[in-house]
Amino acid sequence: MGKDIVSGLATVAKSRIVFLIMDGLGGIPNEAGKTELEAAQTPNLDALALRSICGLLDPIGAGITPGSGPAHFALFGYDPQENNVGRGLLEGAGIGFPMREGDLLVRVNFASLFPDGTISDRRAGRIETSASASICEMLQRSIKIPHTAVEVFFAPVREHRALMVLRGGNLSEELAETDPQKTGLAPLPPSPLTTDAESCALVMEEIIAQARKLLSHEQKVHIPLLRGYAKYRRYPSMQERYKMRSLAIAYYPMYRGIAQLIGMDVATNVANMDEGMKALVANFNDYDFFFFHIKETDSRGEDGNFAAKVETIERVDRLLPQILDLQPDVLVVTGDHSTPAVLGGHSWHPVPALLYAKNCRPDMVASFGERACLGGSMGQIPMKKLMALALANAGRLLKFGA
Amino acid sequence: MGKDIVSGLATVAKSRIVFLIMDGLGGIPNEAGKTELEAAQTPNLDALALRSICGLLDPIGAGITPGSGPAHFALFGYDPQENNVGRGLLEGAGIGFPMREGDLLVRVNFASLFPDGTISDRRAGRIETSASASICEMLQRSIKIPHTAVEVFFAPVREHRALMVLRGGNLSEELAETDPQKTGLAPLPPSPLTTDAESCALVMEEIIAQARKLLSHEQKVHIPLLRGYAKYRRYPSMQERYKMRSLAIAYYPMYRGIAQLIGMDVATNVANMDEGMKALVANFNDYDFFFFHIKETDSRGEDGNFAAKVETIERVDRLLPQILDLQPDVLVVTGDHSTPAVLGGHSWHPVPALLYAKNCRPDMVASFGERACLGGSMGQIPMKKLMALALANAGRLLKFGA
Repeated sequence: MGKDIVSGLATVAKSRIVFLIMDGLGGIPNEAGKTELEAAQTPNLDALALRSICGLLDPIGAGITPGSGPAHFALFGYDPQENNVGRGLLEGAGIGFPMREGDLLVRVNFASLFPDGTISDRRAGRIETSASASICEMLQRSIKIPHTAVEVFFAPVREHRALMVLRGGNLSEELAETDPQKTGLAPLPPSPLTTDAESCALVMEEIIAQARKLLSHEQKVHIPLLRGYAKYRRYPSMQERYKMRSLAIAYYPMYRGIAQLIGMDVATNVANMDEGMKALVANFNDYDFFFFHIKETDSRGEDGNFAAKVETIERVDRLLPQILDLQPDVLVVTGDHSTPAVLGGHSWHPVPALLYAKNCRPDMVASFGERACLGGSMGQIPMKKLMALALANAGRLLKFGA
Repeated sequence: MGKDIVSGLATVAKSRIVFLIMDGLGGIPNEAGKTELEAAQTPNLDALALRSICGLLDPIGAGITPGSGPAHFALFGYDPQENNVGRGLLEGAGIGFPMREGDLLVRVNFASLFPDGTISDRRAGRIETSASASICEMLQRSIKIPHTAVEVFFAPVREHRALMVLRGGNLSEELAETDPQKTGLAPLPPSPLTTDAESCALVMEEIIAQARKLLSHEQKVHIPLLRGYAKYRRYPSMQERYKMRSLAIAYYPMYRGIAQLIGMDVATNVANMDEGMKALVANFNDYDFFFFHIKETDSRGEDGNFAAKVETIERVDRLLPQILDLQPDVLVVTGDHSTPAVLGGHSWHPVPALLYAKNCRPDMVASFGERACLGGSMGQIPMKKLMALALANAGRLLKFGA
């Protein structure tokens, strides 16, 4: 099902869809033989599973481990391969940088150097965001690229992480990343990966050289390491494609950024799960689609902390009655990908999913878990097909053909 | 999932993958209501299924019965339609003929004729391979195509089966096969199927005419019947696509040939299943990927011998502990297609498959069989997607996107 047929059939309706997304939800069994979701006590999700269709979602394709960007694009019904989006772009969107068509966005890690020029700390002692902000301000004010139309902007993201944006001139994403990924090694040059990128590589070298000179007397920050080059492009919005006013409720900047790339509004003053729940209630009458993003499932999975991931899932389960009290026409509970605590990182395993709607045709799945969902009527489908199911169950897709 | 994304993400790792391929493994129930695999006593495979993900593989597409070439290409993650490979090419690779880009390879069956020119024996009494070799040598020495750049080579394969190779000139695969498939009928002309193939058809007619004259006083062999026209082209290798050093362990030439077409090394001195097992042990430290091909499941299926196919499967089951002792990081057990003894030939039925790896997410399948695998978490997937799953489980695929 391509995006075009779905968006061609999308129609306005008085119905509300909630996507409750536990980042990295999927797991694999620990030594006790259960995944995090299977081990968690989730009476509310289990009861909802009985009235829902269940299944498993494959974010990109068999065996492919997704990053957060493509996985979320798939959740929202955007082909994750056609719309692969660089990290710089996600960061830029996350901090609300006013991007323009053609801007080159680069993720920056400020790093410390030994006197011999090798890296002593890839995170510059995790300096405070305010200190990073001062450095960004100084670099943006001072760096000038002679004989080109290129303007350079810097903006702090969090601690040692920042964003650099180049605007104007012949810019390219096709540059080597400069972080050697290890201390004791020299930073790598931003080598061009294609001949078209050669002039951009020269600009990047000039920026790094000027930055090193400007930072030569700083205590901790001596160089910007560059990665995640991405040119800004405009994606078709949720409003254009699905005729839905959409709200993102997320307490991590990157997920707000992804949502904004496809035209979602972003709930303000949401710094944690409970504030997210409040924002959902407060805004429920004003939007058609709600993306409620839970971060801790992924973080605890990345930490390798099985028990803490289980606890997060149980906490989300306790939120469920409040969400159901809002009477959404469609409620989807799933993740963007798997982050098994056993692996301590993202993985390729399909993600359990549940879709509740008044007119769904419930299957026999009576508990929400990876293996229980194998028997569900949603089947194992590409993640990008989920949105069409949600729209249909919300009465938002017209008939195809006469 | 295109091959490009998978090969783009492939990375080197210290892990080993074994594909244990029982040719024609899939079956359909006999009058007792069980398939060959369901009827077989396979305690080792059943125990492994419990720790594995199971499913069914669709070699080409719903309802399509594959030949061995495309089925194996799909197993190795090559799109079987884009990479359809003619039988002549498989024969050429199987006997190690030194093929060059542009060569036209043709499968030859030497046949006997009645005095009236109709076929009396399509297999020329299954002459000995040595007799066939003498005839090949004589034909290659004697046949000359005037006024063209075309060179003609002959090589014996086995008994009455041989290979003919044309090199130079305007060659085409688009010719009619000349075997009428029945005795008592005249051989068919190698008619051109496209206008571009007309000059090649004339060359082929000339070759047949000269061969008939040269063979006119032979006892058994009177004419070469031509089929399986295939031009040689280079396929991207397993090493290029997956960064794996790969070894084929196969005791039938054609399967060694397929493996060599995609750059696998071939184990020597392997004439049967037990020698194959020894070769796997002997070479286990020197390769990343092992293709261990079992032929008898297909042969007994083709024979229509249900019980003998069951016995072969049980014999393979007894090999399993030796394979597991090697501690492969990923072990896949499946077939290239179905060859139900009830049908006595290849069929379109999906093939049961099992993938064991330490970090797979085992499903509830507790025995290895067609119907048990229906409940597995691999689902029913195109065969060409298997390789990405194997690579992922072997830690050989990087993350897609940021």
